Amino acid sequence: MKGWETMEYFLGVDAGGSKTIGVLVNARGELVATGMSGPANLVENGEEVVRRNIGLLATLLEGLHAERIYSAFGMPAFGESLRADMSYLKIITEELGIQPTLLVNDVVVGWAGGTLGQDGVHIVAGTGTIAYGRCGRKEARTSGWGSIIGDEGSAYDLGRETLRRVSRQLDGRETPTLLKEMVFERLGLSSWQSLTEWVYSLKEIERRTTIASLATVTYEAARNGDLVARAILKNAAWELSLCVLTLIEKLLLPKPLVTFSGSVLEKNEIIRERLVNHLKRRMPEVVVRNAAIHPALGAVILLYRETNREISEELLHNLKKASQKLLQDETPKR
Amino acid sequence: MKGWETMEYFLGVDAGGSKTIGVLVNARGELVATGMSGPANLVENGEEVVRRNIGLLATLLEGLHAERIYSAFGMPAFGESLRADMSYLKIITEELGIQPTLLVNDVVVGWAGGTLGQDGVHIVAGTGTIAYGRCGRKEARTSGWGSIIGDEGSAYDLGRETLRRVSRQLDGRETPTLLKEMVFERLGLSSWQSLTEWVYSLKEIERRTTIASLATVTYEAARNGDLVARAILKNAAWELSLCVLTLIEKLLLPKPLVTFSGSVLEKNEIIRERLVNHLKRRMPEVVVRNAAIHPALGAVILLYRETNREISEELLHNLKKASQKLLQDETPKR
Repeated sequence: MKGWETMEYFLGVDAGGSKTIGVLVNARGELVATGMSGPANLVENGEEVVRRNIGLLATLLEGLHAERIYSAFGMPAFGESLRADMSYLKIITEELGIQPTLLVNDVVVGWAGGTLGQDGVHIVAGTGTIAYGRCGRKEARTSGWGSIIGDEGSAYDLGRETLRRVSRQLDGRETPTLLKEMVFERLGLSSWQSLTEWVYSLKEIERRTTIASLATVTYEAARNGDLVARAILKNAAWELSLCVLTLIEKLLLPKPLVTFSGSVLEKNEIIRERLVNHLKRRMPEVVVRNAAIHPALGAVILLYRETNREISEELLHNLKKASQKLLQDETPKR
Repeated sequence: MKGWETMEYFLGVDAGGSKTIGVLVNARGELVATGMSGPANLVENGEEVVRRNIGLLATLLEGLHAERIYSAFGMPAFGESLRADMSYLKIITEELGIQPTLLVNDVVVGWAGGTLGQDGVHIVAGTGTIAYGRCGRKEARTSGWGSIIGDEGSAYDLGRETLRRVSRQLDGRETPTLLKEMVFERLGLSSWQSLTEWVYSLKEIERRTTIASLATVTYEAARNGDLVARAILKNAAWELSLCVLTLIEKLLLPKPLVTFSGSVLEKNEIIRERLVNHLKRRMPEVVVRNAAIHPALGAVILLYRETNREISEELLHNLKKASQKLLQDETPKR
């Protein structure tokens, strides 16, 4: 038991608008424990929810010495408001009884998991959109301006744009297409009034994710040849490529590695293929690939770098194994 | 006093997202009294606020016999949800002690005031956008889908689009222009973080009007030659013309009369001129002009038609006089 008590542990946390994932690994990167709780976005979910969902990760640390734990937290909207940043620090310290070694925006742990900490760009297109890149010590980000003024190419943006086009079809500013039928069927609507009723009766807290869930209807309509749906996806892919290309230029990345994550890029093949084509056309030497490991394990990579530990082949092997386990656990069972 | 007691009165009400105007006229259309209160949009302001602001109009009816009052109410979002429509009816009956003769969407009283009840199209571009037209007994509307999925060309749409473009300028997806400087100056911002903080700390109830108020910055920037601002206005004008042209086609209006109201079309000369040009290019015989009288008096026109009263020259003369008085009262004093 003595050895166990003096071992060092690494806690990586990836918080998001829908769920929070925590992983605990040992010094060789072997998975010790995982934990999952609900959303933890201070701006969108409020302090009480964040406190509860961060607090639920405390089970991961039970029986461990606080001084032996290195921890890295990727939190949504971190770095966008000093008040929010201080709140995150306070909540983590109070709920988990540890001082975080690293506290960063969730896109940073996404990048670390995506590129394994190498120079490059990581783009997330899920409910929201954000891209982040590093070249040596230089870092930069694009998008991530939220559902009201930004997040072009995100699932929310696709959903809202779909509803916007359907509303135009309904009042005759555009010719109705299959997309209108499919949206009406999905939402169980019968009249134009029921569309406005549906949109404006959504509570603010559920509005963003509910509208974002319509992105799958747009994808399906596009695969059925709907030209309006295809135009919406085309524009989204162009927006996502602009996020990446801006960072590549800003950071002067010579042979850029681009990784991605999020439901839109993982599940919408039309957008992903178009994005890759845009990037290759403008920059033939670009390498585009799925994120190497889960963002929560990307947080662990950041910790190893921060504490000047070697990123060995063994470590990467173990983290990849842990990532596969994590993704299996996350996949909903049928 | 006997004559006074048996006289008939006409109450016209124009409710909106920022204020509610009530006018009382006699059978000759002479102004008897006016009243003004706050917003009365059931969907946006909630029942309590609507009840209070409709209730404040009760002073207009003091001492009058309920049976001698004809009343027409133009209410925002009326006709978009049966539940809301029934609530409006209940609130009016309970707060004012009268059964409304007519209860319509506020764009309908805008149209009646705009065209004096003649065949034609009326377009409102204020905080929101909506267009409505009639040809004989046929009626139709376009836009008015609200701040989340519609209202293209409205002040809110201009404000949001401005913030969206500024966010792109800030993270390098677009080249910064004067517009960025002007928005930062207007909002007293100093960093990119402060822009997101500003947007997302707006309470939902104030968000729409606060963002809409930025439309004046875009107009000013465009007049100073900012190309991004000009592009935003150009697109808005195109959207507004699409709303009107769709109705003209739908209603088969032969020599269409188009009237307009709302801050965007009344104050933004660039958008107004572009709209008129779009309409004349597609339809040279179109007549475009300011609304003839205030929407609250448009409600009175609807009542005269509904009760089969003659719309005499004398009546129109008196209503126009009343409208001038009303607009003077509404203009903020300096």
